[in-house]
Amino acid sequence: MVGSCRQCDQCTNDLENYCSKMILTYSAVYTDGTITYGGYSNLMVADEHFIVRWPENFPLDAGAPLLCAGITTYSPLRYFGLDKPGMNIGVVGLGGLGHVAVKFAKAFGTKVTVISTSINKKKEAIEKLGADSFLVSRDPEDMKVRNWDFAWFNLVVLLRHETAFISIFVYVQATAGTLDGILDTVSADHPILPLLSLLKPHGKMVLLGVPNKPIELPAFPLITGRKLIAGSGIGGMKETQEMIDFAAKHNILPDVEIIPIDYINTAMDRLVKSDVKYRFVIDIAKSLKAE
Amino acid sequence: MVGSCRQCDQCTNDLENYCSKMILTYSAVYTDGTITYGGYSNLMVADEHFIVRWPENFPLDAGAPLLCAGITTYSPLRYFGLDKPGMNIGVVGLGGLGHVAVKFAKAFGTKVTVISTSINKKKEAIEKLGADSFLVSRDPEDMKVRNWDFAWFNLVVLLRHETAFISIFVYVQATAGTLDGILDTVSADHPILPLLSLLKPHGKMVLLGVPNKPIELPAFPLITGRKLIAGSGIGGMKETQEMIDFAAKHNILPDVEIIPIDYINTAMDRLVKSDVKYRFVIDIAKSLKAE
Repeated sequence: MVGSCRQCDQCTNDLENYCSKMILTYSAVYTDGTITYGGYSNLMVADEHFIVRWPENFPLDAGAPLLCAGITTYSPLRYFGLDKPGMNIGVVGLGGLGHVAVKFAKAFGTKVTVISTSINKKKEAIEKLGADSFLVSRDPEDMKVRNWDFAWFNLVVLLRHETAFISIFVYVQATAGTLDGILDTVSADHPILPLLSLLKPHGKMVLLGVPNKPIELPAFPLITGRKLIAGSGIGGMKETQEMIDFAAKHNILPDVEIIPIDYINTAMDRLVKSDVKYRFVIDIAKSLKAE
Repeated sequence: MVGSCRQCDQCTNDLENYCSKMILTYSAVYTDGTITYGGYSNLMVADEHFIVRWPENFPLDAGAPLLCAGITTYSPLRYFGLDKPGMNIGVVGLGGLGHVAVKFAKAFGTKVTVISTSINKKKEAIEKLGADSFLVSRDPEDMKVRNWDFAWFNLVVLLRHETAFISIFVYVQATAGTLDGILDTVSADHPILPLLSLLKPHGKMVLLGVPNKPIELPAFPLITGRKLIAGSGIGGMKETQEMIDFAAKHNILPDVEIIPIDYINTAMDRLVKSDVKYRFVIDIAKSLKAE
């Protein structure tokens, strides 16, 4: 973001990202009426309040996506208290957001489980990114215990008398999971109940992706385990600076593919096919020189 | 509840209600194989750990439903930090749980908005229970601003390109609500989005009722306002004692209709029609004497 009202409750609490007048870096209208072009610009002028101090010797190119994927994953880990050493954290989806989430969660000293639709990402998740374990969300074996929840939940809906309610209450508890928190980075429609059942009682699931359809959320597993489902979007400037400093200290960098500007249409086609590990970064200076 | 394992993480943290071996007071199987009959018993013997010390001169009959409706509303107000004087708290549904929620929220010094499908409950909510304001959840006038969210949300789903996303992001923020938290006590199926939009950024919505169908939950308003939706069920023994002492100190009593046991079938019929303000309490001692 490059602007906000600076006066509301959100702005005065270092939460400019939740200000109703927040101006995004890309494709928004700035206070002077011009359109913001973000990473496609050759030059941007912004109010110093929205400028991040870049740590010395920290790569600008690989570090660039931290200003989006980094803060989007760092902020909820902090705000929801999912940053304590020894905690068990799940990361759903291993893309631009997910791979950075794994790196931050590991740097906080948590044990990380990556949950993905594809077994192909297991090697990468564990060997390259340092995740501790891996679950295939479509594998009935991996998610086996949890599927029982579905059956029992349907039963409670069918029967709806108190005796049935109580049996289910006890049963759902018995299958409670092991995760303290989950960051769900997936924007494709996907079932939430198996993920909720991976959470311990009082576990927290944070949505960072926006699926097309509303999520189907049964109240029952939330109530029996006092679980919560929340959302989170980027972070305030103070926290963004804190995140960048933390990333530099722990050498956390997104995995990127650096491209010149004239590769952009090909890059867009590849993005649609999820064919990038994990973010494209346009080298504007080099592109201008080449021109 | 009358039992739990006493050894798990939940039990050792005064959260016996979330223990997987928790035994409910009614219609559960106790450790000795007998069935629990709760408020229908003429006598119950329980482990002292699950006994509440009853405050002197505090009515046993009117106070009885506090052990369910009281702790079910008190616990989430405390756990989710919705107990700070001056906060704005919404209570959805004015029944057994809802009317006690209003009393506790008022005792914490918060400003309470009752949200109900029926205007008929307004007088009762404000004059009798002390709520500060009242919204009719099916009244387009009351919920007007919020309905825009629906339109814009559909738009974002239809368009799904970044420019549209940004316009919506800013718009949804602009219609952010005024409530810090909502206790939703309704078990009938009902839309959640208009309620979410009544919440301020970082607002918390807690489900206490179990609708038949899964809730349709759009991720977008959660993300743009870092809102959360959670569940909560009764409370631990330590907190239950704390709640009872708090209720006695602040003279919080559910509104009840005291009945003899031979009225129970009529009472059940009336319950189905929601014809009770707000809980039936069976006077077992008197019933036994009459017999």
